[in-house]
Amino acid sequence: MATIFTRIIEGELPCYKIAEDEHHFAFLDINPMSKGHTLVVPKEETDYVFDLKDERLQSLMTFAKKIAHGIDRALGTVRTGVIVEGLEVPHAHVHLIPIYAGKKSFNFSNRPKFSKEEMEAIAASIRDSLQ
Amino acid sequence: MATIFTRIIEGELPCYKIAEDEHHFAFLDINPMSKGHTLVVPKEETDYVFDLKDERLQSLMTFAKKIAHGIDRALGTVRTGVIVEGLEVPHAHVHLIPIYAGKKSFNFSNRPKFSKEEMEAIAASIRDSLQ
Repeated sequence: MATIFTRIIEGELPCYKIAEDEHHFAFLDINPMSKGHTLVVPKEETDYVFDLKDERLQSLMTFAKKIAHGIDRALGTVRTGVIVEGLEVPHAHVHLIPIYAGKKSFNFSNRPKFSKEEMEAIAASIRDSLQ
Repeated sequence: MATIFTRIIEGELPCYKIAEDEHHFAFLDINPMSKGHTLVVPKEETDYVFDLKDERLQSLMTFAKKIAHGIDRALGTVRTGVIVEGLEVPHAHVHLIPIYAGKKSFNFSNRPKFSKEEMEAIAASIRDSLQ
């Protein structure tokens, strides 16, 4: 059965899409640690990120770098942090977590809430900054 | 002034070394989140990981992948997670964090303590698994 990320990539499930290319897809995490928290996934279903072939791991990270710079430009971050854990969904994913001045970098509990309209606006601002 | 990581790489400061190649260096974090928590750094001093040139970001991640597989083989992990935050030391570094069955993946507080001998044994077991 397709993973939830494959279903998002294929448009079966909705998402706040940021970008995609031939091998990668990026969209907002719906339970963000901070404003603009984005998931970057390879389209290929591989569970463990370090089981990706070198070429795909490399292209995933350069794709993530582009998205991170877009987040930084759009949202006035200090920088964007990275977490890869991946125990919940068996499809490798890189969390890009915007870090803001004066705020804890990784906010596992007590996550901020954004309305649908706010999430759409955040996604649009990141997309615009990638142009 | 050289960063603390450059001083470790150059042998000016001691470390529990795991591996190095032309452009990368890996050693145990002395304040580990879990047994075998390793830092992987590019030898080049770049503050923000996403300011690394594509080629160096890519080689850093394939180097990290090799180390992560070594950790997994040596220490019986579920897998190895990744965190990049990098606000403490202005020299990009990838945290490789071994995840163990039944334990919280990322243990920011309440970190385990290991003696010098234990740290040396952990480093040796990871080094051996990379052969």
